[in-house]
Amino acid sequence: MHENPSSATSPTPPTARRPGGRSARVRSAVHQAVTDLIAERGYGTFAVGEVAARAGVADSSIYRRWGTLEALLMDVVVSRLTEGSPMPDTGSLADDLRSFAAKAAEDVTGPDGLALLRTVVTALGTGPDGESARDRFLSVRSEQLQGMLERARTRGEDAPDVLEVLDGILAPIYVRVLFGVVPLTPDYLDGLVDRVLASRPE
Amino acid sequence: MHENPSSATSPTPPTARRPGGRSARVRSAVHQAVTDLIAERGYGTFAVGEVAARAGVADSSIYRRWGTLEALLMDVVVSRLTEGSPMPDTGSLADDLRSFAAKAAEDVTGPDGLALLRTVVTALGTGPDGESARDRFLSVRSEQLQGMLERARTRGEDAPDVLEVLDGILAPIYVRVLFGVVPLTPDYLDGLVDRVLASRPE
Repeated sequence: MHENPSSATSPTPPTARRPGGRSARVRSAVHQAVTDLIAERGYGTFAVGEVAARAGVADSSIYRRWGTLEALLMDVVVSRLTEGSPMPDTGSLADDLRSFAAKAAEDVTGPDGLALLRTVVTALGTGPDGESARDRFLSVRSEQLQGMLERARTRGEDAPDVLEVLDGILAPIYVRVLFGVVPLTPDYLDGLVDRVLASRPE
Repeated sequence: MHENPSSATSPTPPTARRPGGRSARVRSAVHQAVTDLIAERGYGTFAVGEVAARAGVADSSIYRRWGTLEALLMDVVVSRLTEGSPMPDTGSLADDLRSFAAKAAEDVTGPDGLALLRTVVTALGTGPDGESARDRFLSVRSEQLQGMLERARTRGEDAPDVLEVLDGILAPIYVRVLFGVVPLTPDYLDGLVDRVLASRPE
């Protein structure tokens, strides 16, 4: 979103790099390098130099853009766990929540899902970068959910609030994956949704 | 439990060390040193030598008993999160679960609670020591819970199963602490218990 070329600053000669184009490519290459390194070796096992080498960019590009390795890691993790999960809009709250639960489970059970989840848990809230990343993660997730729940209320459905979804759907998924109580079957995930909907106060 | 002096092997002259006594003191001092280091500096920031120095024991005592730093860390964390939580037995399932939820929340919100929880999440399931520690954590916790739930069933109460307690009570507590959505008020914790009990199938 921040990479939208049309929002780049001031005109540049057409022979120069496309505005935003290189920036977006750097971001994408660096994010991919970090994702791969986390999946291969885990959080806390690599330095900026290795990310830069793998992404084919200069160390200085990373420092200029993200400031620190921690800030970069947080950016990658928060992006992966939020951008990768567009919110469903099926016209039914139960179906929306079922899609949401299935996607949230998929996000953390893929090949690098557990590594990613561990990174969130270890790094979010640690130090100033972690604090702000955690706030960003929660606010992005909350906003996405809020929109879905608001649509349901507008349709006249009795929707839970965001924290009920965190407690009833995301928390069991995350804890089961972290503790290795898997697999998360579709029936199990649907059951979480059913319980959240059933436990709405009359 | 493993330190019970009466179960120590073969007689020892009364002038020698009390059987089990020194062993129990070493375990206690080493556990305390690890707990303090985790609280002060976090998981992954110290070596066996520092633990030994702080506990006042030789490095070799640690290696002989635990084998690796990872195995030691797992022993400490699993002990803290299980031994520290004796299961309530009030005669009522709702009251037992409320005490259990309050104690589980207390375990992870104390001064070193978050550090401890992060250690569990990061290390449990990573490598062979982590795998066996995770299995031990889950089986100890499950057995404790199972006993409480069985007592309720014997009294004729309709008790949830262990995984329902994991999903409905422990998971929200752990995820809220990890994500910093705190404090966990008594009303909030009681509400988790009420929902688990209310969502029992008829």
